[in-house]
Amino acid sequence: MNHKSIASTQNKSIKHLIQLQEKSRVRLREQKFIIEGAREIELALEAGYQLLELYYCNEILGSDTDLSLKFEALEKIEISLAVYKKIAYRGSTEGLIAVAASKPHLLADLKFKSDNPLLLIAEAPEKPGNIGALLRTADAANVDAVCIANPKTDIYNPNIIRSSVGCVFTNQIASGSTSEIISYLKKNDIAIYTAILQDSAIYTNQSFTNSTALVVGTEDKGLSETWRKAATKNIHIPMLGKIDSMNVSVAAGILIYEAKRQRNFK
Amino acid sequence: MNHKSIASTQNKSIKHLIQLQEKSRVRLREQKFIIEGAREIELALEAGYQLLELYYCNEILGSDTDLSLKFEALEKIEISLAVYKKIAYRGSTEGLIAVAASKPHLLADLKFKSDNPLLLIAEAPEKPGNIGALLRTADAANVDAVCIANPKTDIYNPNIIRSSVGCVFTNQIASGSTSEIISYLKKNDIAIYTAILQDSAIYTNQSFTNSTALVVGTEDKGLSETWRKAATKNIHIPMLGKIDSMNVSVAAGILIYEAKRQRNFK
Repeated sequence: MNHKSIASTQNKSIKHLIQLQEKSRVRLREQKFIIEGAREIELALEAGYQLLELYYCNEILGSDTDLSLKFEALEKIEISLAVYKKIAYRGSTEGLIAVAASKPHLLADLKFKSDNPLLLIAEAPEKPGNIGALLRTADAANVDAVCIANPKTDIYNPNIIRSSVGCVFTNQIASGSTSEIISYLKKNDIAIYTAILQDSAIYTNQSFTNSTALVVGTEDKGLSETWRKAATKNIHIPMLGKIDSMNVSVAAGILIYEAKRQRNFK
Repeated sequence: MNHKSIASTQNKSIKHLIQLQEKSRVRLREQKFIIEGAREIELALEAGYQLLELYYCNEILGSDTDLSLKFEALEKIEISLAVYKKIAYRGSTEGLIAVAASKPHLLADLKFKSDNPLLLIAEAPEKPGNIGALLRTADAANVDAVCIANPKTDIYNPNIIRSSVGCVFTNQIASGSTSEIISYLKKNDIAIYTAILQDSAIYTNQSFTNSTALVVGTEDKGLSETWRKAATKNIHIPMLGKIDSMNVSVAAGILIYEAKRQRNFK
C-alpha cells in the first residue's frame, strides 16, 4: 500500500493546511476547510461531508491508531508530532486533522422535518464564539434550520467549528443575503419575528406554533431596517435592569425555547 | 493645588496597578481592583463603590478632561499616553482608570426588592466570559441577587468586568461556599431549583412565582451532589438535538426568563 508520510513542518502540504486554517479567502476559493478531532470528524461524516485528506499522528493516537483507519478519506497521510503541533489549532486533540469539502449552504437545499418549521435567522453575526453558541442552542432545540443573513465570517472558521462543539455539522445551515432570505421565507409562508425593541410586542404574547422564523441581529447594530419592514411582527425580550444589554446567543436561546415551550418541546 | 503626575512606565505605582490587574491574589490581599472606562466608573460609583485613585490621561481625554474632575476619588493622578497604554486593558477606552475598594459580597448583606425574590446561583463558574454573560442576563431580568457558590475566579477579574459591560456593578452579588448558600436559602424559605438532567422535571412544569433560586453548574462538571440533594426540585431544559450541549449562560437565560414570564415580567 502506498504510504505517504510527512515529517517536516516546511512541507508544502503542511503550509497549505495552515493557510486553509487561517484564511477565509483560501477556504472560499478552494471550497475546503479543516476539521480537527475525532468527534468532530465523525459528526461531519454523519452529516454527509466528504473527507479529502486525513492527517494522523501515530505518536498521539498511540493505541487508538485504528481511529485513522476508521474514517474514509480520499488520501491518508501520516504526520510527525512536530508537524501535528504546528497545525493543531486546539489545545488538546486526538491526533487527527481532516480536510473536507465545503457545502454550499443554499436556501433552496433546505429540507424541513416538520410541517410547521422553526427557523433561527442571524443577521451578520461576527464573533465566532457567538455563532458557535447560537449553533449549540439551535441543535439543543432541534430547530429545522439556521440561516445566516449577510454573513461576515465563513461558517468553517476554526473558532466557529470549535465553539460550536460540532453543532456546525448537526444543524441544517443556509446562508444568503437578507433579501434572499426574506423572499424565501415569504414564498414558504414562514412568519417572520424580528428581535427589535422599537414598536414591538413582548415575545411571550406571540404564538410561534405555526411556521416561524426568529430573527436576531448583532449586539452592536441590531437588525437592519429591511428586516424590520419585512417582519410579521417585531418582538422584544423585556429588559428590566439598568443596562439594556444581553448576549445575542442568550437572547436567541430565550426566544427559541419560548417557541419550543409553546410547541410542547416537539 | 497639589498636582501629581506620572510619565514613566517604570514608576512604582504603575507597576502596582498592573499587578492589581493581572493577579487575583493581589486584589484579594489588598481588597482593591481596577475599573477602566468612564461608563464603568460611573456605574461603580452609583453602586456605592469608593474610588481610591483615579488615573487620567489628558492626551486621550482631550476636551473631555472635565470627566476626570467629575468623579470623586481620594487621589487623582495624571498619566502620560505611554503610561496609559501600558496599563489600559481594553482596546478602546476613554483615558480613565480607577482603583476602587472591593466589596465583601456577603450573603448576610443581601437585600431583596420583592417579597418573592428571584435569585440566580452559579456554582464554581470559571470562564470570565460566561460569568460576564450571566451578569448581563441577571441585570436584564432584574433578578434580586446573583450568588456565586465556591467561586473559582474573583469577581473583579478585568475580563469579568469587561464582559459584563458593567453589570458586575448593577447586580447585587454574594459569594460563599455551596453549603453556606444552601443554608442561607433554606433559612430564608427560598425554593431551590437545580439545573440537573437526572431525575428532573421539565423546567416549564414548575412554578417559579414564589421565592426562587435557580441554580446552574459548569458546562464540564454540572452541579455538585450537594446541590442535587438540597434541591426543592431538579429541573432540566429539554435537549432535543444530537449534541446535548448548551452554553451555561444561555441555559441560565432560558430558566430566568421562564421565571420572569410566569411573574409577568414584574
